[in-house]
This record gives sequence, structure tokens and C-alpha cells, in this order.
Amino acid sequence: MKKKKIVIALGGNALLRGDQEGTIEEQEKNTYDTLKNLIYLIHEGHNVVISHGNGPQVGNILMRNDAGMELYQIPQMPLDVCVADSQGGIGYMIERVLRNVLKEEGLKRDIITMVTQNVVDKNDPAFKNPVKPVGKIYNKETADKLAAEKGWIFKPTQKMENGWRRVVASPEPIEIFNVDTIGRIVEGGTIVIASGGGGIPVYIDENEHVRPLEAVIDKDKASALLAAKIKADEFYILTDVPYVYIDFRQANEKKLEFLNRADALKYMEEGKFGEGSMAPKVQACLNFVENGGGKSIITESTKLSDKAYGTKITMEYED
Amino acid sequence: MKKKKIVIALGGNALLRGDQEGTIEEQEKNTYDTLKNLIYLIHEGHNVVISHGNGPQVGNILMRNDAGMELYQIPQMPLDVCVADSQGGIGYMIERVLRNVLKEEGLKRDIITMVTQNVVDKNDPAFKNPVKPVGKIYNKETADKLAAEKGWIFKPTQKMENGWRRVVASPEPIEIFNVDTIGRIVEGGTIVIASGGGGIPVYIDENEHVRPLEAVIDKDKASALLAAKIKADEFYILTDVPYVYIDFRQANEKKLEFLNRADALKYMEEGKFGEGSMAPKVQACLNFVENGGGKSIITESTKLSDKAYGTKITMEYED
Repeated sequence: MKKKKIVIALGGNALLRGDQEGTIEEQEKNTYDTLKNLIYLIHEGHNVVISHGNGPQVGNILMRNDAGMELYQIPQMPLDVCVADSQGGIGYMIERVLRNVLKEEGLKRDIITMVTQNVVDKNDPAFKNPVKPVGKIYNKETADKLAAEKGWIFKPTQKMENGWRRVVASPEPIEIFNVDTIGRIVEGGTIVIASGGGGIPVYIDENEHVRPLEAVIDKDKASALLAAKIKADEFYILTDVPYVYIDFRQANEKKLEFLNRADALKYMEEGKFGEGSMAPKVQACLNFVENGGGKSIITESTKLSDKAYGTKITMEYED
Repeated sequence: MKKKKIVIALGGNALLRGDQEGTIEEQEKNTYDTLKNLIYLIHEGHNVVISHGNGPQVGNILMRNDAGMELYQIPQMPLDVCVADSQGGIGYMIERVLRNVLKEEGLKRDIITMVTQNVVDKNDPAFKNPVKPVGKIYNKETADKLAAEKGWIFKPTQKMENGWRRVVASPEPIEIFNVDTIGRIVEGGTIVIASGGGGIPVYIDENEHVRPLEAVIDKDKASALLAAKIKADEFYILTDVPYVYIDFRQANEKKLEFLNRADALKYMEEGKFGEGSMAPKVQACLNFVENGGGKSIITESTKLSDKAYGTKITMEYED
């Protein structure tokens, strides 16, 4: 079998389920199960980069920063540092569990975890309309105080009366630091864990200095960019459903086994995918195939090794 | 000039001073100053690995975990995950600031930050006598409760009445994951940031699985092992004093410009170095030179570029 270069973006249930508390035992168990499901790719000899989400973890880190300030007056870290912290903690967990899975499977591979900064454009239109909720839910008084003190932007939550939540922008990733190094290392057979949580958001200022930003980069888009930049053959997004559907959970719901660019664009225009959920994932896959990537697959982590599952996204339908 | 391979361990004031609050602005400013002081090594064309301490940062992360549990019932992460978080946050900060320093200095180098696990022996005698204080100071009642719940070990603090602090073991590092990869990358000219906070402590169990440990590895010893394993020419420990002294802060204090193995061993036996402070640093340097390392230097980060300063530790005195 031809040795392929594959980027896998772990999300959703792959690391922590919404119904779980978030203990390290839960996270390690989920990670173990997920890695067991993708280990066949290593058995087949492919070269693999693993990226991952950080939603619940960085949410907890932000809450702990808030609590540490309130109880012990420990200075809070900005969002970029919290994302970096989460890359350290989650990346370490994936690396350690993967080392054990490799051992169990009789496989030998090096694994390295890289802390990754991803560059966005400071003038990205997303900064005009921040929509990504982060951190805890505050009452109006505290939200107003924090807005004045820190310049944070708050929006009322939809689920709670009098609840206000900080929102940050979700700009497009345009560059990934060390992407050439990542490519070289993975081509040598080492498994690389990188670009966690969409990467640490930075921009390049007018003096060509790297500056931090309080933003969250969509992890699937960041992973798609990484996959395109290292010229990956395949790009997988692991999520909570086995297929992409149109009209999901409606009477006329239809699962898609194959999806080409033209149909994907048409469905997106028609609003056939979930706005904040499946649409950006399909867009990330399109970004990958439009930039020379081979094939993109969206599926559930437990279904990964069964090739009957998953929506295969390509430029054109294969004959 | 011959291109040397150099490992630099940043500690003490290099990242955060004891009299500072711990804001990100303070940390970035200190990091910038430190990197400006060592940038001459890059101008001279050497290949550099940077390791770093994490004392105040991981202390704050532990306190935030405690506060997050108390205020919001967010599950606490174990010490290994907290160390990993700190590697992500500190490594990112060093990498970003170093990218800007390189730009200011007209230098071009790649920089990568690796999350690093360091292996210890589960039967290390240090586990029989944990001495390294971590986390917050508790009252007796809470300390007893945590001891019963989590198996943590507490010792009374010397400075406060009724204060109890968790102590963990500080075992010897015996292996560093990915050390061959680190060596290869740094030999290619890329600056590598690795082994932060002494590395994430793990051990290998009877099934050859990698398991976490609640311990803190001395960062200088871990960095010395890394330096020896990659066959570094020089190993620097940056601390808060310009030299190693014997009888420090006593009437007969004497600064040492040069120190060979025989004299270092003699002084250590005589207790001439501070037990918890300078003695382990000198020991780390001895570990390096005994394992084939060329020269080890202990000095203050602000004095690094002035070669008149610093204690040079070698196997034998040079003629």
C-alpha cells in the first residue's frame, strides 16, 4: 500500500463528551478509545499528524483563571496563554496515551508534540463581529465591570436570563508557524501532535513582530490549512456523527456518502448544513481539497476504521 | 568560530522574579531581557536548546485548579497535566518573544517548542522522602482532608504557624523522550525549546506503558541530562547570582571563577554550597561534564554575554 500523509483533527467526543465532568480519567479513557480507532492507519504504515480541539479544556482553564483571581488574587493569563496551556496539557495526554497504544499494538513510532502558533490577519472582518463564546457566564454587573476593565465584549446568553458571556472573534488562519518542520518530521515517520485548539492566535504587526490576539481560531480550518501546507494526501475530521447530513434531524434528512465541491457549495448556499456546527467543517474540507489536498473525510471517531462510514469530500466525484 | 551545540537552562529571575506579581506583562518583559542577553550566542552561529523552570507558573496553575474546584466544581488536574500546561504556556511565550528578538537583531532561525516527558525510576529513593513543596498553604483540617481524599503528603511550613503544604518527591531524571529528535533538529540550526519545568514526570511500568507521576523533576538536572544526551559542547545554568560561591553570604564567602570536578565534590561534601539552591546546580553541571559534556557555566542571565562573569565547571582545570 502506498504510504500516505494524513492529518486527523480530533474533535467532539474524541477527547471529552459534553455529558462528562472533565476529569483526567474521563479524558484519558476517551483519548485511548479514539486512538485505538485510528491506530489502523499506523498499522498500514501511513505518516500521521494529529490535531485536536480544546473547547472544554480551555473553557475550564479560563474558569480556573477567573476563580484563582477571585480567591487568591493570582493574575489572570490572557486567552493566547490559556490556549497554549491547553496545547501542553492535551498534547501531552494524547502523546502519552498514544505511546501506550503503539506498545500494545506492537508498533514502533516516535511521537512529538509541538506548541503551535497560527497567524491571523488583524484586519480579519471577524474582529468586527465576535461570536465565539468563551469562559464563564456572568451577571450584568460583573460583565459590565470586566468590559470596562479589560475591553472584553459580552453578549447575553440565549439559555439563561441575565446571563452574559464573553465573545471573541474567530478569524481565518492564514499561516502556521513551523509548518515546514512539521512536514519534514512527519515524512520521516514520526507522529506529530500539533495545532491544538486551532493554534495559539497571533498576528504580525507593522514591524514584523509577532503579537498575541484574544481570539479563537476554528480548529478544523486550522487543521485543514496545516494539511494543505504539508501537502497531505488525506484530511480527516472526527466529530460526533458518522456522516455529513443535509437537513440534519429534519424529516427530509439525507446522509451524504460522497460530496464534491460543486454540491458542497450549493448546499452551503442553501443553508443545508448546521451553521455553527457542520458548515465550518465542510468549509474546512473544501479549503483542503481546493488547495491541492486529495480527499477529506468527516466521520465519527468510533467509525473511522470501518471504511463503509464517513462522508468523502473531493473536488470531483470519482467514477 | 566553531559552531557549538549549547543547552541553556533558564531559571530564577530569567522569567519571573520573586518580588513580582506574575502578570503576563512582567513575564514577557523578563523573558525579553533574558533573550536579549543570550542572543549573542545566535549571532555567533551556535545551535541552541533552551530549557526553563516553571516554579511560580505551575504554582499558580495548581492554585487556580484548587480555586476552580472550590468556586465552580471544575475537576482538578493532576500535577503531571499542570506541568504540561505550564510547558505550553511558558514555551509559547519564550518562542514568540524570541521570534521578535531574532527579527530585531536581523537574525533568521526557526524555533520550535516541544512538550517533553522525562522518565524517572518509580523506585527512586526520593519517593520515600518527598521534600519539594507544591501548591497552596492549607490549614491542618483541609490538609488532613486532602491527604485522606487524594493520598497527598503534607508537611508543616516553616514560615507560618498552622500552615501545611503538600510535598512531592523530586526523583532523578533517567531518560528524556524524543531526545534524538531534539538533537537532530537543533543540529539543523533550529532553536528548540524543550524540557520545561524539569519535564513532565512519567515512569515506565512493568508492561512498558508510560504512566504519570505526581513529582517534580529538578529542572537543572533534567537539562543537564538533555545536554549530555545530545552531546552538547556547553551547558549554561542561568540563575540569580553571577558566580557560584563557597560559604555564600558568610564572612569568608569566596567566588569561584573556575571549578573542576575534584574540587566541586570536595566542596559539596563539606556543605560549602546552599543545600536546596546551589548544590543541585553544581551537581547538574557535574552530571553533564562527567557524561562527556565539555564545559558548564553557572551565571546570572544579565551577565551571560560578558564572558568575564560566570563559574566555569569542567572535569579538569584548563592550563
